[in-house]
Amino acid sequence: MNKSIDFERAWAALSKMDDILILTHLSPDGDAVGSMFALYLALKQLGKNVRCIIKDIPRSLKFAEVPEAFAEFNEKYVVTVDVGDKKLLGSELNALYGERVDLNIDHHGTNVMFAKETLVVPEASAACEVLFDLFDFGGINITKDIANRLYVGIATDTGCFRYLNTTSKTLRTAARLLDSGAESGRINNDLFETKSPQYVAFEKAAVNSLSFYFGGKCAVMLITQKMYDEAGIVEADTQGINGLPRMIEGVIAGVTVKERSGGVFHASVRTRDPINAADICSVFGGGGHKYAAGCELGTDSEAAVIKIVSAVEENLKAAGLL
Amino acid sequence: MNKSIDFERAWAALSKMDDILILTHLSPDGDAVGSMFALYLALKQLGKNVRCIIKDIPRSLKFAEVPEAFAEFNEKYVVTVDVGDKKLLGSELNALYGERVDLNIDHHGTNVMFAKETLVVPEASAACEVLFDLFDFGGINITKDIANRLYVGIATDTGCFRYLNTTSKTLRTAARLLDSGAESGRINNDLFETKSPQYVAFEKAAVNSLSFYFGGKCAVMLITQKMYDEAGIVEADTQGINGLPRMIEGVIAGVTVKERSGGVFHASVRTRDPINAADICSVFGGGGHKYAAGCELGTDSEAAVIKIVSAVEENLKAAGLL
Repeated sequence: MNKSIDFERAWAALSKMDDILILTHLSPDGDAVGSMFALYLALKQLGKNVRCIIKDIPRSLKFAEVPEAFAEFNEKYVVTVDVGDKKLLGSELNALYGERVDLNIDHHGTNVMFAKETLVVPEASAACEVLFDLFDFGGINITKDIANRLYVGIATDTGCFRYLNTTSKTLRTAARLLDSGAESGRINNDLFETKSPQYVAFEKAAVNSLSFYFGGKCAVMLITQKMYDEAGIVEADTQGINGLPRMIEGVIAGVTVKERSGGVFHASVRTRDPINAADICSVFGGGGHKYAAGCELGTDSEAAVIKIVSAVEENLKAAGLL
Repeated sequence: MNKSIDFERAWAALSKMDDILILTHLSPDGDAVGSMFALYLALKQLGKNVRCIIKDIPRSLKFAEVPEAFAEFNEKYVVTVDVGDKKLLGSELNALYGERVDLNIDHHGTNVMFAKETLVVPEASAACEVLFDLFDFGGINITKDIANRLYVGIATDTGCFRYLNTTSKTLRTAARLLDSGAESGRINNDLFETKSPQYVAFEKAAVNSLSFYFGGKCAVMLITQKMYDEAGIVEADTQGINGLPRMIEGVIAGVTVKERSGGVFHASVRTRDPINAADICSVFGGGGHKYAAGCELGTDSEAAVIKIVSAVEENLKAAGLL
């Protein structure tokens, strides 16, 4: 199946399932956590048997967890949310479930269509925006608990309505979630308006690691495990840092290279027009969106930086900017 | 007149005016600039003779200016936007026009009702949200140029939809502005996603000036003219810094004390529940909103900090937090 199914078919598929396992991508962000537990609650509303597997939920997103979602049973169906490629499930879950995903609900234009059926809406700001429409279609009652989780996903993936993926439909969806009781004030405060002293220390080190290329058109931040340790913070609690390099005036491609726990370096690439982040990351088997994408770059930090800077250079040249 | 008039009366008042001067508050932010020029364009649409007086527009808001709005003529009527108190016009404009403001359109709950007639909607996130409803009432065509300016005001005063003043109505208003052509992507980028190298240098100095009181419940940043000079930046381009002290985990009252060009120190106070920023600032004749307010504290920096910290202490004690 290499084409998205429509809402009707996705809803029909979900409706006939029971004993469902929900998975999302590694290093879960607000959209991964929010869409997982919003879908869990919606399926419970339909009386289904559902469970979730997820690890490394950031501290600021812990509130979105549903504790009873972790009770184990033998699943008959597997549904994934916010997953553009089964590799992003992580090697362990990919080995166990990668070949047997019945339905994937996503918003990545680079989705590789690995599931038996895929509902992917690239115009949606977040998987949670897709889920909202799907719930609307299926007549799910948007409770406060569901609204909170869908709001978290949309707010995270739009940088709280700052990024270019925010459409008038995104804003109207958020308005409906507020009307359904989403505690946007508290959630925005926790996600966007609060920095721990550990984060402040980490951020200083991250800013000091910035290096610039191509007359300031590319900025690269290099984050090592040592920096996490010294600041007393874990990677999961530092996702906000990825937006920083692109914020500096003149930067068209902002890159954050992070050493993950296994020693592999991962790049998060954020771009401005006309540079496409997903194009840059696809060279290394990664993917994402036009202005935000990611990829893995091996275990050597220097080589990782050289690789990604070269890919940025190619794209700047192709766009006539170098 | 110590009660807000309604939209019908405000529209009737505007409709009968001609040769109109529009003013806004000193140190204009996005809502001041946006509401001034949105109203200018709406009144021009009605064929009226209109002019504006404003100075020190931040660099990031220059695009919202309308050059032809500065042509001089003898005004018959004076309208103010986003002004809670005529003192905030600045001494010069207050002396010239403070006593003859025909209509004030505002959203500050602390509005002192200085104008002949006042349309104030404290539930509105921004003066621009009030104007949107007024234009809707009056049948103004929300052109792209008007939509851009109203969007700037709402985005600024809500921290791009992060702050507690963001309601579902605010989000729906923003959605309608996007549908009317507001270039939210570009505007958000310029206002929230771009830092100049000068700002990055200024921000480092500002963070280093932080001091904490009452077990970290109060954080104070002290900004001097020297810090602006050393970073090569002007105050108007540093308004984003005001949100920083409250962002630190545990801070309930975040204060930014800034030396203004005349040597007077001004405090911007941001709070979290249950502390009311307007209450703190009212002690010094200032005002604003529940979570964001301002006041002047004299020409001595040390005394300024002691004064505002004492007022914070009072409020923390009254709330049982000390």
